[in-house]
Amino acid sequence: MRHFIGIDIGGTNIAVGIVAEDGSLVKKLSVPTGADRGQQELIDDMIASVRAVLELAGMTLSDIASVGIGVPGAVTPDGTVIRAVNLGWRHVPLADIMSNALGLPVYLGNDADCAALGEVVAGSGSNCNSALMITLGTGIGGGFIVGGKIFTGCTGQGTEPGHFTFLYGGELCGCGRRGCFETYASATALIRQTRQAMEKNPDSKMWALVDNDLDKVNGKTPFDAAKLEDGTARAVIAQYIDYLGQGIASLVNSFRPELVIMGGGICNQGDYLMIPLNESIRKYCYAPDELTPPPAVRATLGNDAGIIGAGALQMSMEKS
Amino acid sequence: MRHFIGIDIGGTNIAVGIVAEDGSLVKKLSVPTGADRGQQELIDDMIASVRAVLELAGMTLSDIASVGIGVPGAVTPDGTVIRAVNLGWRHVPLADIMSNALGLPVYLGNDADCAALGEVVAGSGSNCNSALMITLGTGIGGGFIVGGKIFTGCTGQGTEPGHFTFLYGGELCGCGRRGCFETYASATALIRQTRQAMEKNPDSKMWALVDNDLDKVNGKTPFDAAKLEDGTARAVIAQYIDYLGQGIASLVNSFRPELVIMGGGICNQGDYLMIPLNESIRKYCYAPDELTPPPAVRATLGNDAGIIGAGALQMSMEKS
Repeated sequence: MRHFIGIDIGGTNIAVGIVAEDGSLVKKLSVPTGADRGQQELIDDMIASVRAVLELAGMTLSDIASVGIGVPGAVTPDGTVIRAVNLGWRHVPLADIMSNALGLPVYLGNDADCAALGEVVAGSGSNCNSALMITLGTGIGGGFIVGGKIFTGCTGQGTEPGHFTFLYGGELCGCGRRGCFETYASATALIRQTRQAMEKNPDSKMWALVDNDLDKVNGKTPFDAAKLEDGTARAVIAQYIDYLGQGIASLVNSFRPELVIMGGGICNQGDYLMIPLNESIRKYCYAPDELTPPPAVRATLGNDAGIIGAGALQMSMEKS
Repeated sequence: MRHFIGIDIGGTNIAVGIVAEDGSLVKKLSVPTGADRGQQELIDDMIASVRAVLELAGMTLSDIASVGIGVPGAVTPDGTVIRAVNLGWRHVPLADIMSNALGLPVYLGNDADCAALGEVVAGSGSNCNSALMITLGTGIGGGFIVGGKIFTGCTGQGTEPGHFTFLYGGELCGCGRRGCFETYASATALIRQTRQAMEKNPDSKMWALVDNDLDKVNGKTPFDAAKLEDGTARAVIAQYIDYLGQGIASLVNSFRPELVIMGGGICNQGDYLMIPLNESIRKYCYAPDELTPPPAVRATLGNDAGIIGAGALQMSMEKS
């Protein structure tokens, strides 16, 4: 069985793992990213981490077929990081640098695309070849896997599922446009919607849950209060699920995935979120009686998805 | 050079042509669709039309590699029409029926997808392998070609570029949802927006252009009046181009095409539409300075796109 190195460059940590051909994670470690460091230091740490994880596993570079790296930014098919805002990188030939250092082929992918690939290889999408992953966080990220391969679009940069116009002329988005899907359905959006509802409803039970401090509101607050039968919280969640379901249905109409995989902390609400969300997606998909809407399920790999997906990059490219 | 039969089943006519391997249309004819006829009569007409067009060209069935059919509805990869609303068809094994009658392999595609393929094979997209086609008509149709092949999604039914939520809670769409892109940017939408602006502005020059009859408003009306420096018409067009550009940018963020091909009568406005539309798309694309937005160009094949694309179905499937 072949083995691969998967590297996930996150905002906080660089996670490095050995991924087996069956998608299992043999061994992993992580080191702080230190994104404010120079590029060379960060790359040196990645190289040292590869050697370290091999040592932990009792393996050497000769046991490894290739290295895959999930980068928080846009990459080209030939292995250059076009731009990674949070790392301050522009036009870095990362695949060449790493390949020269390690003597192995190196493949790059966008980090969200790698996480989606990881879930399809070894997580909640492992029984299907094609899935759309949507991660609810500060924004909405995600990736689309079709036929076991990352859909990179024609220009190689993958899909931006959070940045279609969802409410023309609506809330300002971090991307500079107005009304993007992520401004209504990210975790940040849910928190904003919760605070707005609390301000209008001083009698909501949510106030007690956050010690009367709006700064303590998080994505769990409305769900906790809804379980206490707080009407304001229930209305917030119903509206949020309507936004989320309608936006996911929009993406389903575009991509026609077999499966929608949901990531992000909000999904820890489990069935309390997923059951009404599936109803909402079904309600809003195009021609749901003819073209069966795909189920939406929770991601299962957590942070390991990015490592496994990065490690699986070579295998995915070998698919026809 | 191989030759193929391409059939485009339209609402008014069934167009049948002989398509050469280089994408040229050797000979074509058309017969009325008569969608209210029985299924067998319509199929018999298609078979007779294939024989007739071959006779016109001095060719026989033995000169043809395969038959491709563009169907106004959802089809499966194995050649069944799942549903074609305007024909009243459900679960028709059309490829098998036609193949038995003609003794040739038969491939099915969605009609909008075939038109997009035709433009990439022999029209405005012939210098690139990958394009998103958007047709502005009663609704918004279209198709996405990637690597010279139709993107059918995982379930085989292609993309619905007119049915993502564009203005949450907005205008009712024919699909039953609210605020779909096509309710703001189709030709029908432009006509509705024009009428509404005329009702609010009794002094608009558009009234004279339509003999004071709102029923005579068409997609050309606001453009004709704008060229006469009518302020109301100019405002209608500016708003419409903003809708259209923002919606196309949303699709570009999803699909990352190399090229956007625009079809439909409104595109006959030429540069008057296309120059500001390209500016609008560029303004609204995600990270336009890093990820160069694709140009939007006019379709060049008109109705022949569907025939050529249907004829090219086998060739597209042969691509790796």
